[in-house]
Amino acid sequence: MKRTMHINGDSCQAENTMSAKTWPIRPIRFWKRVLLFVCCGMMAASGFGQQALGQRPRVKSPVANADGTVTFNFFDPTAQNVSVTGDFQEISWTTLPMTKQENGVWTVTTPVLNPELYSYSLSVDGQRFVDPANSYVNRDISTLSNIFIVSREKGDKGHLYQVNDVPHGTLARVWYDSPTLGQQRRMTVYLPAAYDGKKKFPVMYLLHGHGGDETAWGDLGRTSQIMDNLIAEGKCVPMIVVMPNGNPTCNAAPGWWHEGMYTPNGNAFNERGAKASMEESFMDIVNFVDKHYKTIRKRSARAVTGLSMGGGHTFGISYRYPEVFDYYGLQSAAARIKKGDAQFDDQMTRLFASSPRLYWIAIGKEDFLMRMNNDLRNYLDEHQYSYEYYENDGGHIWRNWRIYLSMFAQKIFK
Amino acid sequence: MKRTMHINGDSCQAENTMSAKTWPIRPIRFWKRVLLFVCCGMMAASGFGQQALGQRPRVKSPVANADGTVTFNFFDPTAQNVSVTGDFQEISWTTLPMTKQENGVWTVTTPVLNPELYSYSLSVDGQRFVDPANSYVNRDISTLSNIFIVSREKGDKGHLYQVNDVPHGTLARVWYDSPTLGQQRRMTVYLPAAYDGKKKFPVMYLLHGHGGDETAWGDLGRTSQIMDNLIAEGKCVPMIVVMPNGNPTCNAAPGWWHEGMYTPNGNAFNERGAKASMEESFMDIVNFVDKHYKTIRKRSARAVTGLSMGGGHTFGISYRYPEVFDYYGLQSAAARIKKGDAQFDDQMTRLFASSPRLYWIAIGKEDFLMRMNNDLRNYLDEHQYSYEYYENDGGHIWRNWRIYLSMFAQKIFK
Repeated sequence: MKRTMHINGDSCQAENTMSAKTWPIRPIRFWKRVLLFVCCGMMAASGFGQQALGQRPRVKSPVANADGTVTFNFFDPTAQNVSVTGDFQEISWTTLPMTKQENGVWTVTTPVLNPELYSYSLSVDGQRFVDPANSYVNRDISTLSNIFIVSREKGDKGHLYQVNDVPHGTLARVWYDSPTLGQQRRMTVYLPAAYDGKKKFPVMYLLHGHGGDETAWGDLGRTSQIMDNLIAEGKCVPMIVVMPNGNPTCNAAPGWWHEGMYTPNGNAFNERGAKASMEESFMDIVNFVDKHYKTIRKRSARAVTGLSMGGGHTFGISYRYPEVFDYYGLQSAAARIKKGDAQFDDQMTRLFASSPRLYWIAIGKEDFLMRMNNDLRNYLDEHQYSYEYYENDGGHIWRNWRIYLSMFAQKIFK
Repeated sequence: MKRTMHINGDSCQAENTMSAKTWPIRPIRFWKRVLLFVCCGMMAASGFGQQALGQRPRVKSPVANADGTVTFNFFDPTAQNVSVTGDFQEISWTTLPMTKQENGVWTVTTPVLNPELYSYSLSVDGQRFVDPANSYVNRDISTLSNIFIVSREKGDKGHLYQVNDVPHGTLARVWYDSPTLGQQRRMTVYLPAAYDGKKKFPVMYLLHGHGGDETAWGDLGRTSQIMDNLIAEGKCVPMIVVMPNGNPTCNAAPGWWHEGMYTPNGNAFNERGAKASMEESFMDIVNFVDKHYKTIRKRSARAVTGLSMGGGHTFGISYRYPEVFDYYGLQSAAARIKKGDAQFDDQMTRLFASSPRLYWIAIGKEDFLMRMNNDLRNYLDEHQYSYEYYENDGGHIWRNWRIYLSMFAQKIFK
């Protein structure tokens, strides 16, 4: 392994930079210089442009160091306690206390970090904030966190999650009609770079968890980056990926529903009050996709997978529509078997009699849904139903779901 | 005018809510309850879930009050000075000092606010942060700000900018090939709800300013909301809106370029080093759009408009390709005439000899580019070239560009 490190390909950051210079000096066209000058003035006057203000140092954070560590910097001469909390270890969150330097900048350097997408936030005198020097954030339910990617070489996890110089697919927010739910609803559709409106492609349906929405897999799950990179490397076949909204009482992500900019709440969208469940209404999605995109309209070209609640949806879909899908991926799935339910037993019999090409169950050792998954696997074993099982470290976390997506995508349509 | 007020349709927030209750109690399915419980525990333990922690009050911010004011709340028992800075007045930023209550929550209430999309941030002991209780943020270059919308009734500006229960268009991030620039580049494409892959539509090309990218008009400019609402009300014709990246040395928004997660910088992307300018390479975009979408491929069905640098691009495009576009909108344009340049004079003669249906110049009274726009208008007047002029209050701000987009969209293709 090379000893150089890239935060997202930005490989020229070996030093812990903290320059008083506000802008790089380059020859620029006249009106751009005018714009720049006036914008800086406006931002400074408004208090909206802390990075352009002369009286405070321009802090860069995070900074990738040549030795594989990462340094965080935060300017606050009056704070008493500043720390950074991030998923720097394999499983649990780590809080690193920051140290104040003479110039008022708090700083801390991590141990050497493995290639990965990391999330973090700052704590300033007990209050949680995103890092003002890092404009890259992800929203998980109602909480924003900063992100950065550590990649050292082609083929590592960081490389898989970052944007590389490869052909890129299209990512679209699409509204579709759901007759079953009586709603116009929003989904995200990834079309591979090779999609030209003529050639037909297989479809993976990719379902989010409780508290998520149609943006979760794209933002937190890095779906388009993972798919672009796997396809470019020939590790998976070009496919369409459909990421619907899985909350039947809500038709779009926060801010995109006509109910307004409510505070997202993991418990807001249970199925009570909906005209139908996600599973019952699921064929509206498949029908829309088959009608509006160039899809291969047969079972062997359809896969469905999801995480947590979406793993539960995948489970329900598997025994409701065995004729529709050939590949199933249950990721950290909230998949509850219906013990002693004759109809359920019949549905499961019919599902496995149809010999799906893949029934894949993936979960982390520390996942709180392990018992539920053990119950499911015991049921499948008792009935001698064939499935694949993958267990790794960690719990109910996006880090695992990105791994499971990467694995599942390489297993299907081959 | 009704005296009730909605922040984005969330009309049930008449009280200044600050509840110690962490989750609404509703009957929920077993595994959802399990999920909820464990997720809260994980979040609390990790320091990533301040809203779920029992020991601190759950603060709601912002809160729309029945009297038309808005209240901000922020919990920090140890801070000395907390304030909120936002664009609460027509033109300038306003800083409102917040007052600490006994429970450690800082609070302040605005005067009555007009219907509008507002941006704000918090200042805590001199440091600028986004409001941790509000997960709605916009990025402008490298700075995140919170947003909220005030709307009182159908037809007001807030209503125009929010998501309403109307048919919605698709918003897609599309990669296209630019032979002139030798790059794969990213653009945003809005397809109206009526787009069905059969009927053909006119196209508006909508260009961002210096420091912006292909996400700016969608996020800061509320393009899809404005277009959905204007089309639903019959105020503009259904059209495709194309929002390309206008930086020839960069092919996508920060984080979507293979150069990584660099800190966005308004001065990063001048045209030096590019194979061609934005104007020179612009027909690559038109050709791609005409090839891949159902467009009406004639001059009377093409409009181009942009803000600031994008207004300059619009100007350059207007005299380079008079045969391609029939409608031009220069918004706060960095549009510099080439005094005494015979080729420029010839191009301008040819442009206006072609009688474009609309040549529209819009700028705010306080815009720092007013002199440049006056020079342009003097030139047009001297040559008796026909154009429309709109001047309003305010300066070089997104609030004006949303107004200009709304006006321009209603003037074209009719």
